[in-house]
Amino acid sequence: MSLLTVGSVAFDALESPFGKTDKIIGGAATYITLSSSYFTKDNNLVAVVGDDFPQSMIDTFTEHGINTDGLEIRPGEKTFFWSGRYHNDMNTRDTLETQLNVMEHFDPIIPDSYQNCDYLMLGNTAPAIQQMVMERMHNRPKLVVMDTMNLWIDIANDDLMRTISMVDVLVINDEEARQLTKEYALVTAAAKIRAMGPKTVIIKKGEHGALLFQDDQIFFAPALPLAVVFDPTGAGDTFAGGFIGHLAKTDDTSFDNMKRAIIYGSAMASFCVEKFGAERILNLTQDEIDSRVREFVKLSAFGL
Amino acid sequence: MSLLTVGSVAFDALESPFGKTDKIIGGAATYITLSSSYFTKDNNLVAVVGDDFPQSMIDTFTEHGINTDGLEIRPGEKTFFWSGRYHNDMNTRDTLETQLNVMEHFDPIIPDSYQNCDYLMLGNTAPAIQQMVMERMHNRPKLVVMDTMNLWIDIANDDLMRTISMVDVLVINDEEARQLTKEYALVTAAAKIRAMGPKTVIIKKGEHGALLFQDDQIFFAPALPLAVVFDPTGAGDTFAGGFIGHLAKTDDTSFDNMKRAIIYGSAMASFCVEKFGAERILNLTQDEIDSRVREFVKLSAFGL
Repeated sequence: MSLLTVGSVAFDALESPFGKTDKIIGGAATYITLSSSYFTKDNNLVAVVGDDFPQSMIDTFTEHGINTDGLEIRPGEKTFFWSGRYHNDMNTRDTLETQLNVMEHFDPIIPDSYQNCDYLMLGNTAPAIQQMVMERMHNRPKLVVMDTMNLWIDIANDDLMRTISMVDVLVINDEEARQLTKEYALVTAAAKIRAMGPKTVIIKKGEHGALLFQDDQIFFAPALPLAVVFDPTGAGDTFAGGFIGHLAKTDDTSFDNMKRAIIYGSAMASFCVEKFGAERILNLTQDEIDSRVREFVKLSAFGL
Repeated sequence: MSLLTVGSVAFDALESPFGKTDKIIGGAATYITLSSSYFTKDNNLVAVVGDDFPQSMIDTFTEHGINTDGLEIRPGEKTFFWSGRYHNDMNTRDTLETQLNVMEHFDPIIPDSYQNCDYLMLGNTAPAIQQMVMERMHNRPKLVVMDTMNLWIDIANDDLMRTISMVDVLVINDEEARQLTKEYALVTAAAKIRAMGPKTVIIKKGEHGALLFQDDQIFFAPALPLAVVFDPTGAGDTFAGGFIGHLAKTDDTSFDNMKRAIIYGSAMASFCVEKFGAERILNLTQDEIDSRVREFVKLSAFGL
């Protein structure tokens, strides 16, 4: 089935205890589409960049079967830029610099060829833009999945609440879920978020795995215990890309299939953190993915 | 099979956002033996208390099939006392007061009737005492499991390293594992601990579950997501009691059975936190335990 991903395509500059990078390609939609490209070949991107964005990266998207008809290139403008520094524990980071550039006036255009997309992934961006995307699609997709971040809870809460009320699945991390709901216990936080609209809530806990909530059902997917987390940038987006990629591939939104989708998402995220930026998810083989998923089975399977 | 548990039997006074208690019964060995009593009826306790310790609690141990021949009562002395206050997140706590009392000169006596115990659980206490227990047993038990805490890493590191080198399984929490090995990644920390002696390492992550390491195998058991964690005191000990209780009951120390044992331990711990102190684990039924274990299956089972 077809998948449409909307979100940022950006430059990142990263510093971590393992070194630092110059400007590398980042952005939520970059990680999501690259990750989902291993699952579905009907993969469509809506984003905006400046004319400083390299053609070679657009070619890379194309090589991964990602349709870039919806990637707007704004002449004379610059691509969104973010730089950050990770602390020693790799779980916390400081933003060093944010240049919104083209993202300041992101006006997402949905090409006609994207209008019938079955699955919609709203990567993290301003909730007003996420809402605009839903309104600009002529038909409601089968499933709309949305990611967000603490910034929007702080500065665009009304927009955020309205957008959340319109989606099927909210993907959010544990601290954001607590901030959004003012509840510490994630079970209670998830119930409150479901009361806001989404039938399904996924709470990401980073190295502690992810929880899937739907009705009175809970599923927990562990994260793979890793000796080295080289760079966590994009891990959450890569997770979301694997999740919706598997759903689009199988066209099955049952709870049981969402469980599998979360395992695939977790497997993809475990690759992402092995190298700086998106480097590791540029060249994966199906064998590598299958073998990583089997590690998740071994990690969590038990018989009574 | 027979199980011997050694550790503290104590008074605790607790404060949490949910209220405060007067002196209630606590101590690592209390939680461990109560928890393991649901698995094995050949359950033997070595501990020391003062003559202020209530006979009614000794009767409670007996009602749970716990042999208290090894519970020394020191006339004219007082029972170990600890008081602490939990913060709002229930994950961190401050010690308000510690009175070692009888624990200052704990000289564990192993009754003859305990000498052939098959399974030995060394609850958290000074590593020199844990070592003394192993030396005072005429025969090496089939399996020796040891718990410890940050205090001994700080003040008795040499003793601790010697004791760790003598046991089969070390149970330790994530922060302690990091402190002990100076490694942040738990995979690396576990490898370093296994190089110190124990064939098997269990790293407890509280609300984030527990990891079991043996050779190149890793198993992850989730914690049950709970709406209310009323009092986490003793949860780690209750977990250890369920773990070794299941091993003693089944007399099978294979990796596959240790996986089951960790699930049973996690289920027992999930009961413990529902009420103050050991209250909730005093009156469990087999049905309640079985039903809780099935919740763990539902929480983590997926098919590819």
